[in-house]
Amino acid sequence: MEQLLRVMNFNVSSDGYGAGVGQSLERPFGHAEPGEMFSWAGATASWPMRTDPGGSRGLDDYFTRDFARNIGAEIMGRNKFGPQRGPWLDHDWKGWWGEEPPFRTPVFVMTHHPRPSFTLSDTTFHFVDEEPVKVLAMAREAAQGKDVRLGGGATVIREFLDADLVDTLHVAVSPVELGAGARLWESPDELLDRFEHEAVVSPRGGVTHHLFWR
Amino acid sequence: MEQLLRVMNFNVSSDGYGAGVGQSLERPFGHAEPGEMFSWAGATASWPMRTDPGGSRGLDDYFTRDFARNIGAEIMGRNKFGPQRGPWLDHDWKGWWGEEPPFRTPVFVMTHHPRPSFTLSDTTFHFVDEEPVKVLAMAREAAQGKDVRLGGGATVIREFLDADLVDTLHVAVSPVELGAGARLWESPDELLDRFEHEAVVSPRGGVTHHLFWR
Repeated sequence: MEQLLRVMNFNVSSDGYGAGVGQSLERPFGHAEPGEMFSWAGATASWPMRTDPGGSRGLDDYFTRDFARNIGAEIMGRNKFGPQRGPWLDHDWKGWWGEEPPFRTPVFVMTHHPRPSFTLSDTTFHFVDEEPVKVLAMAREAAQGKDVRLGGGATVIREFLDADLVDTLHVAVSPVELGAGARLWESPDELLDRFEHEAVVSPRGGVTHHLFWR
Repeated sequence: MEQLLRVMNFNVSSDGYGAGVGQSLERPFGHAEPGEMFSWAGATASWPMRTDPGGSRGLDDYFTRDFARNIGAEIMGRNKFGPQRGPWLDHDWKGWWGEEPPFRTPVFVMTHHPRPSFTLSDTTFHFVDEEPVKVLAMAREAAQGKDVRLGGGATVIREFLDADLVDTLHVAVSPVELGAGARLWESPDELLDRFEHEAVVSPRGGVTHHLFWR
């Protein structure tokens, strides 16, 4: 069975930035306002970090409820994992997500500074200093036949796009300009030479969902 | 955990009919042309009856790929199960779907003429002569905590709507007029007193997806 590499529920600004500048412990997305970028997802019933009942079950919920379906591993960049740069001073930092990370699969964190693997609830984080094609091979093996989610950030997605390893993308474009940061694209049109494309406006989420497949 | 009763991937004509008149072994949807009604779904990669690789992975695929996610049982009417009416002459008929029905859960067929349960691959069909609320209780128990799919046809969905038992609906409206048959509604607006509603036009499927939740 085909094992896809999928970008899912990735958010960018109207000018194509996945995160702003100045990432810190207090501001995981730098100068970008998470509330403006991700409110469409947080309003849905299936948002993985939802703690209270309720939430919408319209179009946007089809995207958030698809997050875990047939996913067996995630690949992410170090800047998605944490705000630190360079060698680890210690191994106390275990990600932004608390004791119950929403991934519930093996996660491969790409970094030039590997550290020991650790497990939180159903999620195990591995740290790997390898090229995209090798990281994908590791993630596919760990996924045991299921698909692999490419979790971002923008820089990591660009690396996998440049290596032509991405099978499908779902990118939600918010009506917010960031002006600077980690950029996915200048325009979705950049991918049209290699991907089929559909754009769907969310009736209430305030975003446009861009879908690409090949 | 909440167990929803969900109408999923149900197709109606622009004038609200789920099937035409004159259902027979050769024409499961009567005078309605399945090709016109369902082509949006058959074109997707995740269509459950797909036998060849390929297919689109755009908006329409989010609907077909959601078909089995967190579903533990299906309820359907006898006219979805087969074209026969009245008492069973024999029990040779085992549905339209061959040796590998796409449901892969218990299925409860509502009929005034029960017959013994039987299993094909991962699907077991039960035949029950009960009110909607009782059939739903049986399906919920069989679903073991997962959601229940209300598979149709239109008459059965109406019965469950009239009993106020439906939690979410996804209805795809095709640009085809049928003029007669089994009718779900005259207009989607009929449900607005009880449901939240979004309508999304499929960029390439030629249908409008109507989503309802409460």
